[in-house]
Order: sequence, then structure tokens, then C-alpha cells
Amino acid sequence: MKNSIIIFLLFNFLSLQGQHNEKITDSGSIIKKGIENIQSHLGKVPLFDASLQQVKEEVDEEMKREIRVPVPKDLAGGYTHERHKKNYATAQKAGVLYKILGEEKYAEYIKEMLLQYAKIYPDLPLHPAERSYARGKIFWQSLNDSNWLVAMSQAYDSIYEYLSEDERNYLEKDLFLPYANFLSIGNPKFFNRIHNHSTWGNAAVGMIGLVMKNDELVNRALYGLKETNIPENARDDDGGLILQEGQKAGFLANIEEAFSPSGYYTEGPYYQRYAMYPFMMFAKELENKRPEIGIFSYKDGVLIKAVYALLNLTDADGDFFPLNDAQKGMSLLNQSVVIAVDAAYYYGDQDPGLLSVAERQGKVSLDDAGMAVAMAIEQGKAEEFKKQSIDLTDGPQGNKGGVTVLRSEKADDVFSLVFKYTSQGDSHGHYDKLSFSFYNDGEEVIQDYGFARFVNIEPKNGGGYLKENTSWAKQSIAHNTITQNEKSHFNGDFDTGNKYHSEKYFSDFTKDNIQVVSAIEENAYPGTKLHRTLALLTNDIFQKPVVLDIFRIDGETENQYDLPFYYSGQIIATNFEYETPDELNKLGTGNGYQHLWTEAKGIAPGGNTRFNWSYNNRFYTLTQALKSNDSIILARIGASDPKFNLRRDPVYIARKKNTKNALFISILEPHGSYSPVTELGSNSFSQIEEIKVILDIDAYTGIEITGLQEKKIVFILSNEESSSSAKHQVKIKEKEFSWEGPYTIITK
Amino acid sequence: MKNSIIIFLLFNFLSLQGQHNEKITDSGSIIKKGIENIQSHLGKVPLFDASLQQVKEEVDEEMKREIRVPVPKDLAGGYTHERHKKNYATAQKAGVLYKILGEEKYAEYIKEMLLQYAKIYPDLPLHPAERSYARGKIFWQSLNDSNWLVAMSQAYDSIYEYLSEDERNYLEKDLFLPYANFLSIGNPKFFNRIHNHSTWGNAAVGMIGLVMKNDELVNRALYGLKETNIPENARDDDGGLILQEGQKAGFLANIEEAFSPSGYYTEGPYYQRYAMYPFMMFAKELENKRPEIGIFSYKDGVLIKAVYALLNLTDADGDFFPLNDAQKGMSLLNQSVVIAVDAAYYYGDQDPGLLSVAERQGKVSLDDAGMAVAMAIEQGKAEEFKKQSIDLTDGPQGNKGGVTVLRSEKADDVFSLVFKYTSQGDSHGHYDKLSFSFYNDGEEVIQDYGFARFVNIEPKNGGGYLKENTSWAKQSIAHNTITQNEKSHFNGDFDTGNKYHSEKYFSDFTKDNIQVVSAIEENAYPGTKLHRTLALLTNDIFQKPVVLDIFRIDGETENQYDLPFYYSGQIIATNFEYETPDELNKLGTGNGYQHLWTEAKGIAPGGNTRFNWSYNNRFYTLTQALKSNDSIILARIGASDPKFNLRRDPVYIARKKNTKNALFISILEPHGSYSPVTELGSNSFSQIEEIKVILDIDAYTGIEITGLQEKKIVFILSNEESSSSAKHQVKIKEKEFSWEGPYTIITK
Repeated sequence: MKNSIIIFLLFNFLSLQGQHNEKITDSGSIIKKGIENIQSHLGKVPLFDASLQQVKEEVDEEMKREIRVPVPKDLAGGYTHERHKKNYATAQKAGVLYKILGEEKYAEYIKEMLLQYAKIYPDLPLHPAERSYARGKIFWQSLNDSNWLVAMSQAYDSIYEYLSEDERNYLEKDLFLPYANFLSIGNPKFFNRIHNHSTWGNAAVGMIGLVMKNDELVNRALYGLKETNIPENARDDDGGLILQEGQKAGFLANIEEAFSPSGYYTEGPYYQRYAMYPFMMFAKELENKRPEIGIFSYKDGVLIKAVYALLNLTDADGDFFPLNDAQKGMSLLNQSVVIAVDAAYYYGDQDPGLLSVAERQGKVSLDDAGMAVAMAIEQGKAEEFKKQSIDLTDGPQGNKGGVTVLRSEKADDVFSLVFKYTSQGDSHGHYDKLSFSFYNDGEEVIQDYGFARFVNIEPKNGGGYLKENTSWAKQSIAHNTITQNEKSHFNGDFDTGNKYHSEKYFSDFTKDNIQVVSAIEENAYPGTKLHRTLALLTNDIFQKPVVLDIFRIDGETENQYDLPFYYSGQIIATNFEYETPDELNKLGTGNGYQHLWTEAKGIAPGGNTRFNWSYNNRFYTLTQALKSNDSIILARIGASDPKFNLRRDPVYIARKKNTKNALFISILEPHGSYSPVTELGSNSFSQIEEIKVILDIDAYTGIEITGLQEKKIVFILSNEESSSSAKHQVKIKEKEFSWEGPYTIITK
Repeated sequence: MKNSIIIFLLFNFLSLQGQHNEKITDSGSIIKKGIENIQSHLGKVPLFDASLQQVKEEVDEEMKREIRVPVPKDLAGGYTHERHKKNYATAQKAGVLYKILGEEKYAEYIKEMLLQYAKIYPDLPLHPAERSYARGKIFWQSLNDSNWLVAMSQAYDSIYEYLSEDERNYLEKDLFLPYANFLSIGNPKFFNRIHNHSTWGNAAVGMIGLVMKNDELVNRALYGLKETNIPENARDDDGGLILQEGQKAGFLANIEEAFSPSGYYTEGPYYQRYAMYPFMMFAKELENKRPEIGIFSYKDGVLIKAVYALLNLTDADGDFFPLNDAQKGMSLLNQSVVIAVDAAYYYGDQDPGLLSVAERQGKVSLDDAGMAVAMAIEQGKAEEFKKQSIDLTDGPQGNKGGVTVLRSEKADDVFSLVFKYTSQGDSHGHYDKLSFSFYNDGEEVIQDYGFARFVNIEPKNGGGYLKENTSWAKQSIAHNTITQNEKSHFNGDFDTGNKYHSEKYFSDFTKDNIQVVSAIEENAYPGTKLHRTLALLTNDIFQKPVVLDIFRIDGETENQYDLPFYYSGQIIATNFEYETPDELNKLGTGNGYQHLWTEAKGIAPGGNTRFNWSYNNRFYTLTQALKSNDSIILARIGASDPKFNLRRDPVYIARKKNTKNALFISILEPHGSYSPVTELGSNSFSQIEEIKVILDIDAYTGIEITGLQEKKIVFILSNEESSSSAKHQVKIKEKEFSWEGPYTIITK
């Protein structure tokens, strides 16, 4: 890191400190008022009451057993790990119950537990497991220790008045202060980053600081450690760089840096969901106890915007799109999102759309925000949360590419197309520039693999990341985008990938019958320009909206280009010949190719290539305008997988060889349905007669789609000029086309 | 066929004719009363009204279009096929609407359609497609032509009074009579069997006979054709013999022969469901118009019993167990079952349990029976339909083996184990003696493959059976039972398999903590006795009920025995070493083995073999007491499958080689759960410390199961004496065990 940057950072740090170095105000009265408000409405607000009852049952059940604070030993999934997790979760909830219900048994339970921790903590060495770059004491990594302190700060806060001064002094001296110091001063690599780990660490230290009325801890949390001795090339367990150029630290810097102005979190929605808990919990405490910071207005209210970004990154079932490292099935039902949605309602603009999300979550946070949400629902204020097509920018300033979700509804079907042209996404990023996925309602029609990990499932590497996450899930070929010469983007090198981002070319959601997004990637393969345009297109020709995919590649040298489609389901019919081998071999030797079994190899026929499959009783056809010597590979994940860590999912790959430039035109067409009960199918065939490239020059690409009844659609894209006001004129086969903006669509 | 048998058949036929040769009574008044009853309740019985409304919307929508009666040409899924199907379905429904609502437009619609059919029928040649053993005229097979006539008989009946005598004469002369003659006299191979095809044919001819008041047709339907010239070795499309020894014919004979006394239909529930429609529809018409037959009391009321058998052969979601050829997902929601359930209620004992099934079906048949059901539901009479453990016998006399379903509930989980020890099951039977499948709620934990067919999906062989149905789905290795020396049972020969059936050894559902069924198969492999005992066992050791599987094999020569478990889900952990190859090869060369890719090969360790997997966020462990040189194969379906007709499902196979006798002891243990939202797992590990064979002699097999807390269960089976009153005494390691009946279980 250059000296000038350090000086800038220090200056920045001091100046921020100067601005915000207020004393902690005594906000006891505000909080008390909140509790009294909750108490006065108990029994009258069903969703709140139900949420309270659920927590009460859980805590009461757990309190039947003796408190156990075992000597730390196990990894995730193991006994001591799960015990300590259960402890802090129960203590946090017991604290809520004590505050709301006033029953002393809850306070006493927390007190006893904390005393037991205080007894062992001073002598605790580092956790015996050595796999983390930042080992914890209670858990194998500081991250989990931070989870503990975030929860226990709340528990401690709840019983603060219940404890004697001596008890408080004892707990703070033997437990909380050394604990907070360990997570911060003792773990600068963990504490001083822009990363979800640090957000947790910052919130933990800040939240206990607020309860202890310890300004130093609070400021350390807000602004980071002043000095660290982190080696320049230090990395975390996922290979992420600890220090990055111009890096700031602390909670505010994490808000600043991790979110784009539109609220997108660079690691993706799965980790955003995880980070929302400390972001929101600490923010709520700050709003109560340090209202002068105006935390919910910080960076133009990005914490609230982040909630909307998160909700917009879900499919029709409310599951998050698994961008970058992500567990499938993680959804807006997660407790972090419950808290985030309630806070966004309460501290934001009381958006009635958020109320329907809360209804779907079926519970609220047990505080002012949750009560406000539950009461508003009870008053019938809830309105549908409308998810529409949306661009989310990436990068602190919003200038590092982004994610676009195109959405379209037809009858009962909701279609979502997710297009990713972000920056690397930190250590949890995948090498998948310009990749997309496609959903029919909550079903993954064209899937993103997600991560290779079984969180908290002990036999699978202690619940941690599997090596197939690197060798498979992060690789380009594992995604629905181009792989050149069987190498991943940036050659799979994190530091290189981390320097670049794709650029949005344009997006347009203004028309009824078509929504378009287009982006360019010029760094994934030096010397090759990748330009992908995706449209969600509604037309009489098709039964349902279709995806039009124009992937244009401009290379300086001759290359091989593979474009996979990870379809879900079973093949019904193809119009091309292929050979199925008598033994299955791996598709390649590295970069993820070693994980694919080649089930069939075919050659594209003249004209269009058609690939028809069924999934959950619906039909889909992928029609491509390939050249007649292009090849098609049908493969399946699962090779080089000695522990059966990977799902055996299928893929269709279109391959072009020995060519500088390439144009992949594909239409993904959902159609028809089938019932195994009536055994009746409808529309099991594609409605497309033909797709034709009618023009492909540097400046323009033109496509003609012909439907079964000879209806035609022409789509022309300007490849070099994306301005919405630029005028274009082009002649194709004696026909003049003129329009304004980056594309035109003509239906005849 | 020997002369004596022919003489017996003729005699039997004539004597039945003599008994039942009554005139058709004019039952118009009874039917009219039924309709008046329905009309008087319209608008007051929600489930009936909703069912009527649904049919009305469907018919009204279809009636917007011109009637089209195209010249037959296509196979299933093709235009003319689907058009004619739609025609008869709409006409049948329009008839119901005319009867209930009295609106002439419906009668007029039917009349016009029938006139159009009458115009083309006399000149129609056989359908151009030549793939059926009994080609139709409207459709490619007589079966579909029969579907048409069953529906059109109802439509014609509805408008009988609406038509002039001339119109009726014209329709009967040019359409219905030649149509009925074609299906019967013109197609003896099709009409004169004990088979669902014939049931359809019989019902079609009988139902039109009842409307036409044509005794000859009705009697032909009830008692079959007197004389046929069917060659002795004639076979149907599925390889089933047309003529079988001692074979009777006609509708009554089909009731007699196809159902066991307990109501089990020998082809399995999928085809039973299909056959229930003609059985029930013709029976209902007979009950109205020939009440003297007492059709619903026939064979001790077996048509009603058959409905209960069918309902008992469903999983927790109401899907039929896919025994023999069967489509997965076919369920009690099917229209045939709606009609069957309503009829069983109305013509049976008004069982309130059937009402909850009707509620779940969400509709009723639009007649007296449906009205009675809907009214009873409206009156709050519905009670839960309790599915308990049940033995269903196979064979007309109930002495050809059977199917047992063991059921157990624990908390919210419903477990069902299906054990098959039937006869061959006609041409739709699979070579799967002593196979089982296991369900956790509606999820297939250990699956039966079902058939290899995509019904009505045109690109998949016109919707017909695929060749993989024979090469894979019927083979023994495709099922959860023993395959000896890589050959299927009866060497996959239908005629041989058709001669034999397994024998139930015993079953016992009298105890709370254990339910047991045991059966023996001695003919599948001459010289080898297969004896399998399956128990559903509840005990403190286990979190949920477990399956105890004792498969004992007694061979005269040294053989290889493979026992597969077609688990659903992904492998979490194993306790044995295995090798995964760099290329995948087929497990074998024939009998289904050519369809399996060998993904891994392992050797059983000393002690127990553990195999742990997860499926839909639940965990399962298969623990086996194998010998230390036994091998384990992990394979996947999909080899030799050039059209991608097969699902890529996994299997665990335990293999014993070069041994005369073999004992496979397995415990299948459901445990734990996982949530991708909370990311918390519980009980992801097996609770079994060890399974040990403590005794294995000709007379007895003894097993000891040790749980994690040293709790033990001993299970001793008498291998040679199944009487429930026989007394046993045996000493194992100085300990005396004495009990009464075929087995004992001791928990300590």
C-alpha cells in the first residue's frame, strides 16, 4: 500500500472520528417507551403475539435443561459448536422475553449463563481447530465468536438493570471487554476488512460497547482499528485478499464500501442476507443510542435500499438467486430478513408492500419495528410487494457493473431472468461474467449451480466449503456463460478478476412486449470482447414469454468458445444427431471440465438446432441458430467427485471451434404443460419455425424469428452505440429499418 | 388348449348366460328421479356446484369452436388423436350438462357431433398406424376406440329422448351398432380377454347396448364372445398372452378374474385406476337398468372393495405406489378415482371416511352418487380416511401371493413400506419378486422405478411404451430385490413368470412397536429359495420408525446375489472405502445391468457398512451387516440410453459372490432434518451402534441391534414355521429365548 493512501486513510479516519465522537446519550427512556408500547398491545396483534409465543416456547423448552458451557473443541455441526450456538441464541431470545414479559426467570437464566462464560473465558486459549485465518476462542473462527457477541450484547442489554453493579463489573472485566478486544485488536485481519466477517466483528464490538457505554469500543467498531500489522498479501480461508488498495475499515466503511448505491451487496444476496443481521442490529442500536449519526440515512439510506435489493433478488417462491457462493433454498423467510424487512418498514417510509412480505414471513422481530409491522398488518394496510424488472449496480459508487433482473408474468406464470455483469464479488465471487439464470415461478429452468458446500452438515468437511467449490462451482464452465479455450475467466485468478468488472451496455424496461439488458466484458479473456444481450420477449407467436439471447464474441485470435445451458429436467426430443458413448469420459482436464461426464456429442444440423425437455411437467425448447459444423455436447456434472459432493445435473453445451468471432443466437422458450393425473399434455412443441441471422456486421446484429403461422419478428441490435437517443438506419435485403436507441423490434 | 377346457368354458358361458339373460327393464323413471333430486339441490351443495361449474366452463369453452371430426391419422399426442379424445370427453360432459341444466344447446352439440361421426364411420378403414395387436378405426388401437364408445354411450343416453326416432335409427345403424360389433366380433383378441383392454371393450359394448336396449350387445358385453378364432400363442403389444388356460371372458369374468377377493387388481394400482372407470361406469348403468344382476354385490362386493384397495395403495400425498408398469404422480385425484370413490360411498355403506377422500379430490361425479357425497360433506359427515397396515391378496381366489403395506406414523411423519410378493401381474408385470419401496410422507426414499414411458408425449415413441421399459424397467435389477447371477427372475420370461407367484410366509400388525411381513419365492431362480422379512420398527433407539430387512437366500449352487437399494438423494457419508473410476463403465451387459453406470466400487469393512444420504432435507442411513469381503457398488441409471429415456437415479447395491447361501441384514433408518433457511441440521447421524447376526441356522435367524446408548434389540425369526401358535425355544450364547409365533422381539 502506498504511503499517500495510508495518509489519506488516517486523515479520513480522524476526521470521521472528529465528526462523530459524541458521548453516548442516555436513551433508556426512549427504549423504555418502546417496551411499554409493546406491552400495551400484547394479545391484540396476532402476528406479534404468534411470533412471541414461538420464541417463548423455544426458550422455555431449552430452559428445561441445565445450562452447559463446554470447553470449546468441535467444528461446525459438532457438539461444542452447536451447544454454544444454541446458548447465545437462547440467551438473546430470553432477553427479549424478559424485556417484554418481565419474568425474572429469563433474566436469571441469562445471568447464570453469562457468569459461566465469564468463569472460563479469561483462561480460554485459541480454539484447537486450526483451519481458520482468524481462529476464535469459543468457536473455530472469530466469525462465530462475533455471532456470539452480537447475540450476547442484546442479552446483556436486556438484563443490564437486573444485574448489580458488581455483577456488571465482573462480566465486563472478565468477559465482555477481553472478548471485544480479542475480536478487534487481537484479530485485525478479521476486524479491519470490507467483508461480511468484519461487519459481524464490528457490530459485535460496537453493540457490546453501546451496552457497556464504552466509547472506545463503539468508535473502534464504527471506524475500525487505527493501526494494524497485516501483511500485504494476507488472505482469508477462501483466498480473498485481506488488504485491498484504498481500503477503509469499520462499520461505517463497510456500509460505504460493501453496498452499491442501489443497495446491492457485492458478495451476492446469500451473503447479504447473512450480513444484514449485524448491519441491522447494530444500526437499530445506534439509532436508539446514537441517533445523531442518522445511521438509516447514511449513504443516502442505503441500509433500507439494501432490503429492497435483497427482496428483488428472490424468485417467485422468495428464494434468493444463488449468485456467487450461495446455498439454494435460502430465502426471505430467514430470520435476518425478517429483522431487515421490519426495520425497513419502521425506519423507512412505512411501505405497505413490505407488510405483505412480513405476512409471508409469518413472523416479526420482537421489538418496536416488529410491533409496528404487525399492527399495520392487523389494520389491513398490507399491499402486494411488486417485483419488477430492476437494475442493481455493483461497487461502492455503483460504477462496477451490476445485476439485472428481467421479469414477466403471463397467466399464472412468473418468469425471472437474472443477468450478472458485476465485479468479482470478493472472495465469494464466481468466474461467471455475463452469466444468466432463468426461473419459471420458483423453478430453476436454467440454473446457477450455487456453492459446493453443505452448511452445518458435519460429515461434509465440517460444514465448510468443499474443494469442489473451487474446482467446480467457481469455474466459468459451471455457469451459463462463455468459456474460451477451456479456461475460466481471468484464468481463474482472483487477484486479476478482482481488478475488473463488466460494463452495462444498456437496459430498457419501458416497453410492454420486450425488456432488454445488454452488457460487455472485455477483461475476462484479454483480446476477446464478450457482448451479451438478453431480452424477455412476449409475442403472439409464443405461448409464454421467451428469452432471446444474443451472445456476440469478438476475438483477436482463433479460439474455442463453449456456451452451456444448465437446464433442469429430462430430454424429450432433439432435432440433431448425436452419439452416446459406451463408456463415459471427462469433458476436459481442468477448470471445471474435469467434473463433467460427456454423455453425448452431436453436430449442429443446417438451420436451427432444437433441444426440447420437460421439467416438473412443463416443457421448454432451446432453439439456436448455430453454424452447421458447430458441435453440441450433452454432459452431466459428477466426474472427479470422489466424495459425491456434486449434484448430478445435466447441461447442454454449444461449442464453436477455431474461430475469432462467434455469434450464439438462442431462444429459450417455455411452453405447454403436462399432468400425470389426467395424462394430458398441451403445447409440448416449440412454436418457432425458424431463427435466422439476417445481419451481422460490426455495427449491427439483426435476427429474424419466424413463428409457426409465418408470423415474423425482427430484432436489430446496435453493437457499438448504446445511447437511447442515437438514430439508426440500416438496410437488410432491400428493406429499410430506422429507429432510435440501441435496438429495435418489429413484429409483422 | 385342451378340449376339456374348451368344453368347460363353453358350459360355464352358457350357464352364466342362462342365469342372467333378463330383459332390460325400463328404468327411465329411476334415472329421472335421480336427476330431479340433483336439480332440486343445485346451488345448495358447494362441492357439487363447483364440480358442475368446472365442467360447464370446460364444455362452454370448447363449444365456442367448430366441431371437428378429422380423418384418423395420428398416434397419441398427434392432432387427430387428441381431437377425437377431446370430442368424446366434451360430448360426455355436454350430456351431463344437458341432463342437469336442460339447456338444448348441449343436446344439439352432441347430436351434431354424433351425426358427423355417423357420416364417416361406415367407410372408415382400420387406423393407418399398424403398431397395435388390435387396431382401432378412430384411434390407433381398439382400446382408445372403446374409450370413445364408453363416453359416447353416455352422451347418446343423455340426448336419447331429445333425438327423433329416425335420428336414433340412423345413429344406431350407421355408427353405434357397427362400432360395437367392430370392437367385439371384429376384435376378439381385444374383446375376449381378462385384461383392462377387454374391460374397456366390454363396458363400451355393454353401455351402448343398454342405451340401444339391445340385449345381444349387453349379453355379449357381460359374458364375452361365444366363439373366437384366436391362435393359441397370440400376444398383445406388451408380450402378454391373449389366451390363458381356463380363460373366461366378458365383463363379469373380468370382475371375477382380475380382482382378488380383497379388491387388488393383478396389474397393479396404475392400471386398476384406469380400469375402474369402465368397471364403475358400466356397473352404475347396470345397477340402474339391470338391478337384478346386483352388480355391486357381485363376487362379495368386490367392486367396492377394489376402491378401498386402490385408496390403500397410495402414499401420504395420495399418489399410487408404482407397482408394475405405472406412471409416477398418478393419484387419487384422477377422474376414474373420483367416480369410483363416489360410487363406493353411494352404492356401498356410506362410509364417512370416503367423504374426506372426496374432499381432497375437490370434485364429485355429476350424478346421484356425486350429489350424495357432496351433500354428506356439506352436512359435516366427513371423517378421516385412515390408511393402516394392510395385506392385499392377489389372484381371483386370493391365493396367488399379494402386496402388503406397512404403515407407521411418528410426529408429523407418515412412513409407508410396500412389499410385493404377487403373481406376475399380467403383461404389465415386472420381474420383481419380493421387492419393496419405502416412503416418508409422499417422498420416495427407496423408490420403485415405475415404467419407462411418457404417456401422451408424442416425441417419446408416440406416447407408447419405450423399449427401455423391457430392457430396464421390468428387469429385476431395476427393483429393490435380489438378482442372481445378473439374470432377471424367471430369466425375464413372461410365460414362466406367469405360472408362479410368491407365497406369504406371515404378516403381523398386532403389536404397537413392530409390524412385520414375510414372504418366500422359490421359482424365480430354480434351486434358490428367497425369503424376505420386512419389519417397521419403532423404538427409543431410533428417532423415527426404521425398516428392518432380513433377506435370506438358500441356493443349491454357488451364485452371485445383488441386492439394490434405489435411494433418492445425495450421499453424505459412508464408512467404507471405495474407488471412483476415471471413466464410467456399464455394470453389465444385459438384463438391465447394461443401463447402469458404475460410479464407485467398494469393499464392505469388517463389522457394519454404513451409507448415509440426504433427500429433501431429511437424512437416512442404511446400515448393513455384510461380510467383510462382500462388495458394494454405487451406480446410476442412464447407460445404453441413446434417447435419454431414463432418469439418472442412483442406486446402492450390496453384492455377495460365490456363495450358496446368503443373508442380507439391513436397517434403513430415517433420521433428522435440515433447513436451508435456518441452515440448522438435527440428528444427521445414525443412532445405531451395531447390527449383529447372533444366530443363523436353518430353523432360526437372530439379529441384535445395539443403539448409541447401549440399548439393545433382539429379533429372532423362525425360518421354517410361520404358525402364530407354534412355540419356539432357542439358546443363543447361554441365553434362553422362548416365544410363540413366527418371530420374537426383545428390547433391553
